[in-house]
Amino acid sequence: MMSEQIDKRKAEHIQLCLTDQVEGKLITSGMERVKLIHNALPEIDFDQIDTGSSFLTKQQIKTPFLISSMTGGAEQADQINRHLAIAAEERGWIFALGSTRALIENESYRQSFQVRKYAPSIPVIANLGAVQLNYGFTIDQCKQIMELTEADALVLHLNTIQEVVQTNGDTNFSALLPKIEALCTAMDLPIGVKEVGWGIDGQTAYQLSQVGIQFIDIAGAGGTSWSQVEKLRSQDPVKRLAAEAFVDWGIPTVDSLLAVKEQVSNRSIIASGGMKTGVDAAKAIALGADHVGFARSILKEATTSVEAVLEVMQVREMELKMAMFGLGVASLAELRQTERIILT
Amino acid sequence: MMSEQIDKRKAEHIQLCLTDQVEGKLITSGMERVKLIHNALPEIDFDQIDTGSSFLTKQQIKTPFLISSMTGGAEQADQINRHLAIAAEERGWIFALGSTRALIENESYRQSFQVRKYAPSIPVIANLGAVQLNYGFTIDQCKQIMELTEADALVLHLNTIQEVVQTNGDTNFSALLPKIEALCTAMDLPIGVKEVGWGIDGQTAYQLSQVGIQFIDIAGAGGTSWSQVEKLRSQDPVKRLAAEAFVDWGIPTVDSLLAVKEQVSNRSIIASGGMKTGVDAAKAIALGADHVGFARSILKEATTSVEAVLEVMQVREMELKMAMFGLGVASLAELRQTERIILT
Amino acid sequence: MMSEQIDKRKAEHIQLCLTDQVEGKLITSGMERVKLIHNALPEIDFDQIDTGSSFLTKQQIKTPFLISSMTGGAEQADQINRHLAIAAEERGWIFALGSTRALIENESYRQSFQVRKYAPSIPVIANLGAVQLNYGFTIDQCKQIMELTEADALVLHLNTIQEVVQTNGDTNFSALLPKIEALCTAMDLPIGVKEVGWGIDGQTAYQLSQVGIQFIDIAGAGGTSWSQVEKLRSQDPVKRLAAEAFVDWGIPTVDSLLAVKEQVSNRSIIASGGMKTGVDAAKAIALGADHVGFARSILKEATTSVEAVLEVMQVREMELKMAMFGLGVASLAELRQTERIILT
Amino acid sequence: MMSEQIDKRKAEHIQLCLTDQVEGKLITSGMERVKLIHNALPEIDFDQIDTGSSFLTKQQIKTPFLISSMTGGAEQADQINRHLAIAAEERGWIFALGSTRALIENESYRQSFQVRKYAPSIPVIANLGAVQLNYGFTIDQCKQIMELTEADALVLHLNTIQEVVQTNGDTNFSALLPKIEALCTAMDLPIGVKEVGWGIDGQTAYQLSQVGIQFIDIAGAGGTSWSQVEKLRSQDPVKRLAAEAFVDWGIPTVDSLLAVKEQVSNRSIIASGGMKTGVDAAKAIALGADHVGFARSILKEATTSVEAVLEVMQVREMELKMAMFGLGVASLAELRQTERIILT
Ligand SMILES: Cc1cc2nc3c(=O)[nH]c(=O)nc-3n(C[C@H](O)[C@H](O)[C@H](O)COP(=O)(O)O)c2cc1C
Ligand SMILES: Cc1cc2nc3c(=O)[nH]c(=O)nc-3n(C[C@H](O)[C@H](O)[C@H](O)COP(=O)(O)O)c2cc1C
Ligand SMILES: Cc1cc2nc3c(=O)[nH]c(=O)nc-3n(C[C@H](O)[C@H](O)[C@H](O)COP(=O)(O)O)c2cc1C
Ligand SMILES: Cc1cc2nc3c(=O)[nH]c(=O)nc-3n(C[C@H](O)[C@H](O)[C@H](O)COP(=O)(O)O)c2cc1C
Repeated sequence: MMSEQIDKRKAEHIQLCLTDQVEGKLITSGMERVKLIHNALPEIDFDQIDTGSSFLTKQQIKTPFLISSMTGGAEQADQINRHLAIAAEERGWIFALGSTRALIENESYRQSFQVRKYAPSIPVIANLGAVQLNYGFTIDQCKQIMELTEADALVLHLNTIQEVVQTNGDTNFSALLPKIEALCTAMDLPIGVKEVGWGIDGQTAYQLSQVGIQFIDIAGAGGTSWSQVEKLRSQDPVKRLAAEAFVDWGIPTVDSLLAVKEQVSNRSIIASGGMKTGVDAAKAIALGADHVGFARSILKEATTSVEAVLEVMQVREMELKMAMFGLGVASLAELRQTERIILT
Repeated sequence: MMSEQIDKRKAEHIQLCLTDQVEGKLITSGMERVKLIHNALPEIDFDQIDTGSSFLTKQQIKTPFLISSMTGGAEQADQINRHLAIAAEERGWIFALGSTRALIENESYRQSFQVRKYAPSIPVIANLGAVQLNYGFTIDQCKQIMELTEADALVLHLNTIQEVVQTNGDTNFSALLPKIEALCTAMDLPIGVKEVGWGIDGQTAYQLSQVGIQFIDIAGAGGTSWSQVEKLRSQDPVKRLAAEAFVDWGIPTVDSLLAVKEQVSNRSIIASGGMKTGVDAAKAIALGADHVGFARSILKEATTSVEAVLEVMQVREMELKMAMFGLGVASLAELRQTERIILT
Repeated sequence: MMSEQIDKRKAEHIQLCLTDQVEGKLITSGMERVKLIHNALPEIDFDQIDTGSSFLTKQQIKTPFLISSMTGGAEQADQINRHLAIAAEERGWIFALGSTRALIENESYRQSFQVRKYAPSIPVIANLGAVQLNYGFTIDQCKQIMELTEADALVLHLNTIQEVVQTNGDTNFSALLPKIEALCTAMDLPIGVKEVGWGIDGQTAYQLSQVGIQFIDIAGAGGTSWSQVEKLRSQDPVKRLAAEAFVDWGIPTVDSLLAVKEQVSNRSIIASGGMKTGVDAAKAIALGADHVGFARSILKEATTSVEAVLEVMQVREMELKMAMFGLGVASLAELRQTERIILT
Repeated sequence: MMSEQIDKRKAEHIQLCLTDQVEGKLITSGMERVKLIHNALPEIDFDQIDTGSSFLTKQQIKTPFLISSMTGGAEQADQINRHLAIAAEERGWIFALGSTRALIENESYRQSFQVRKYAPSIPVIANLGAVQLNYGFTIDQCKQIMELTEADALVLHLNTIQEVVQTNGDTNFSALLPKIEALCTAMDLPIGVKEVGWGIDGQTAYQLSQVGIQFIDIAGAGGTSWSQVEKLRSQDPVKRLAAEAFVDWGIPTVDSLLAVKEQVSNRSIIASGGMKTGVDAAKAIALGADHVGFARSILKEATTSVEAVLEVMQVREMELKMAMFGLGVASLAELRQTERIILT
């Protein structure tokens, strides 16, 4: 695929994701089914609440939050990634880059992915479509991505339905597991897997954990729907109409999280997909997530300014701390142990 | 009944079914209660997905789809059936004709039912109201229908509530089972039974299977409501008002499908009634259906052109393939085996 | 209470009940929770369906339907009762008069209650507030009512909440049971009890059956709300506001019917309260009711003409027969035995 | 904190609470899940129904109702508290003052808290934020409050989430339990604890009962939301946005009541939070509450006149009596024993 096309596609993705047309319908993250039980007498000091977390046992960060993979490559990407990286460094969030495939295909795109200069201390995650391993993308190219981005980890995204709707999408997802295994073996840095909004089930998570995957970002249903995004871009009437039938497709984030947690105990789990608030984050962590990712709900601010991103980050952090205060837990470790949770 | 009346009635059926007033209310097919569990790592190639199916072990077709019985006889019927037959032949769908009773009663109606010239290879199904067996329709006339239509099978429709509301409807449904048995014995070709939108329960399906019925089209509730259709046509104020109370009558398609599947294991089952998408079809097949039928949701295109029908067919096929991709199954046999399904 | 006041009150009741403001809110009869399971192959002839029924083992009537107690005494009552009585006679419905207390208190009101001339063959039921037994109403006066109305039975209504909201309502409901017992013993004709829209529970029904009550009309919640009716009439701001809190009060008709049926097996049970159609009636009978009553849903027609009442009666009958046809039952006895029913 | 600030804050609280913006969203008290089962034959006289109750075994009052803590200190408070106290005395309600902290901090505020002159006979409850015990408030000051207010009891409020959102809120809630214990030991009068609209769980209630707390006012979720109130006042954009995520926070009143009742059997329990009617009150008492509190739903009348308060009180009392009549119980003791209750 020509890089220009990628460029145009990514620009369109951003434009469309700034509207509400891309939300899934008749499906939710399931977070409204999770109730946290208020503790009126927490016996803690709000100011002592610690949201400190670590990513893959290596890096200590101030929050359990992650900016989910969004962009890189497109014209606007430069600015967006700079805003996000600077803010993430300041607030102590993990920063996941958008698909870094363009990085290899076109040198002019490098700059937008090279955020290490703005974010020297936080974990940075590079991103690649897993299916590319079936389309000639090599382990050496993956290594090159890691060098160019100075990222701490690489996450492979799984996005079957999106690829089908997308014009010229790459839809041969056969026999990827052995290739993922080979990649995990060959790379020095941790490899993770993520969905893009339809969730990962327990069995798939288990299989991935068996081939060397270090972390799993469930990216469940209930937030951005990538069949909706691609429907809005598509020129093909058949795909456009067919995509509509997938507006409620996918495993709700809560269900995916519970299923993955049950099957995979010694891998890092990132809950994402339709996460809107720090209260959602508290619920996800109480249900077993290690980290919580936000994509579209932080996009508008990312296109605006570092300050805008900082504010939305502070709001999410404040919400998380307030939820912890309301539960009477002073650390994420305690939050993970809380019994003050009901799933209806 | 005079043929002219049938003609008028059928024309009105088509006109009314092109509007949304004929949908059941406060009842759904139940497909929204069926959730398919996304498989993020399908390990298959989208292009290798095979939706090939066979009808009554005899004919191999490209899809598991059926155009449910709609018309024949009426003025527009000629054109509608031609559009449908040509498209069905091209895409490999089963084509069920509307009631072929008019065929016997009036020679001038024959042409609209003679679609074999447009559809040489696909299964074609002739249609007759089962109740006609109580009103003088003979086995010989049934044989004549099969000869004139060159159909592969005959389906008898059960439509009690419709007949009551319809002016001069045939409402003596007593002792039909022995007559159906006699017909099954006498005919060389397979006989099936269908409802028209109120579903078939397990016990009835079992009884039918015991007297020689080869396939059952459940035609459940949740789509077109034939009490609504006839209400809109009726001149009788009592029937018009009474019909309204049946707007939510019937067994939802999902419930009917499950019940029939449980009672009848060695007969072909067609799921229909309110089927809107290929995702609905995937659910029905995963629940045990052999084929999936669409009536009203394809009618508008049928009145338009072959191309319009082809497009809607391609959309349904694309949706089915996408759902299979999303589940990670490469054939209908695998789809039938999937455990990635939840009924809430 | 002066008769003029009763007159005015009854006129207001009728006027208000012709509007929709008097329906309960946030509560339903529960009939939408009852599903009848369609039988596609009923093996019966619609024209042979028999809805014949008998009231208190004595009278044979054409339907299981009852016009619930509504009026008498008020100016309009004369006309209303004439319309209802003539139509009930023609269609074979039971006719229950409104409260016959006025009959005793004022001779000029007699005529409106004397419907026997219009309805020589059907069961006619006289009506009295049970609480009147605490306010000086004697057994002799009850006998006088029976003579003047030539009624076949007397039904006592229980209407606590209405009496509270009503200006000068009679609210001493203490120790009524012994008085009801005495009445049952003294009277030659069968005595029944009804509510007015809040339902009767199983235990109360049992107690009533033990003191000689022959039939119970549950008059459950989900239809007319008598706290709403009296709220709209009241001049007292405290009662007006308090009444509003009872807009969802009462036992839904379905729940009341099931409870009474469980506790009382050898008494006639009338299901009423929010009954809208013959399908509702079919559900009630399948759940165990002997008869089904309609009040407000037939009032408008009652104020119009005999023809209007006849039409609505025919609609209810047609709906019942259609539901029986859809179930495949040819008599009420079979309807009572049907297993084609689900309560959700 | 300067008293002027408190003054302004309290005035704003009142103004905001006169609008509907401060109600919680997507959460209810749960009272709609509680159904009372109508008793058509209560065998009691409405006029004999007795709602008499006692507070902490000491005072006999005419109702089980309480005016929940609202105000004192602010300019309007004088008038509001006078209206409430006079009316409470007349109708026999318990009267809880708003936070009496201002009383100590500024002598000019005393008058509004000194309602004993208007309410000589009813129980009066003084109020203080429990967290103040961590900010220098002494037992002696508590004693001073009791002397100045001539109150019968002191209730400590727990309001974590409110304090976080409030500008300069006191958010060190660590180790309060020992301080509460010390206070209970030192004071001659009974000490209670209340929330402000997020409810108290069973375990917390148990802990409080173990350190000497005499009564617990659950103040559950479903009514006034104090994160909404403070959000509307806040100048801090981060807190303002974060507060919004707590609009559905808290334990619904019904769930809190059941949980506390289960854990704490020998303490007085006040049900409050979103109580709207005397029917709600009847439900709460049938579920085990000793008293029932109303705050915001009585505020508008409190700002108007004694007469307005008296009317709303009479409406609540009428509703309670009607509910008791509908259940067939003649006293609160009987209401507490009723089995005519279903929780869905
Ligand atoms: C504008 C935009 C671009 C995205 N690009 C990528 C991408 O390149 N790689 C990827 O793995 N996911 C991508 N995603 C998906 C997100 O990482 C995330 O999984 C998904 O949007 C669900 O999260 P949300 O509901 O918070 O938006 C993108 C999302 C958005 C909104
Ligand atoms: C215009 C129209 C005509 C129909 N005519 C017949 C018919 O002649 N015979 C028959 O068995 N069913 C007939 N049907 C019923 C359909 O075959 C089908 O069972 C029913 O419409 C439910 O499917 P749907 O919800 O997809 O419309 C007709 C349906 C439509 C919309
Ligand atoms: C206008 C009107 C007058 C009524 N008057 C009486 C009456 O006098 N005695 C009585 O027992 N019930 C009376 N009722 C109550 C009905 O008999 C019936 O129980 C109640 O309305 C619930 O049925 P519905 O929902 O079908 O209206 C009256 C109802 C209406 C609508
Ligand atoms: C205007 C207003 C002021 C309040 N002030 C106090 C207070 O000073 N102390 C306190 O404990 N609760 C206070 N509350 C909370 C109430 O006591 C009550 O717990 C809460 O509003 C929930 O009840 P509701 O839903 O009936 O309003 C106040 C409530 C209102 C509406």
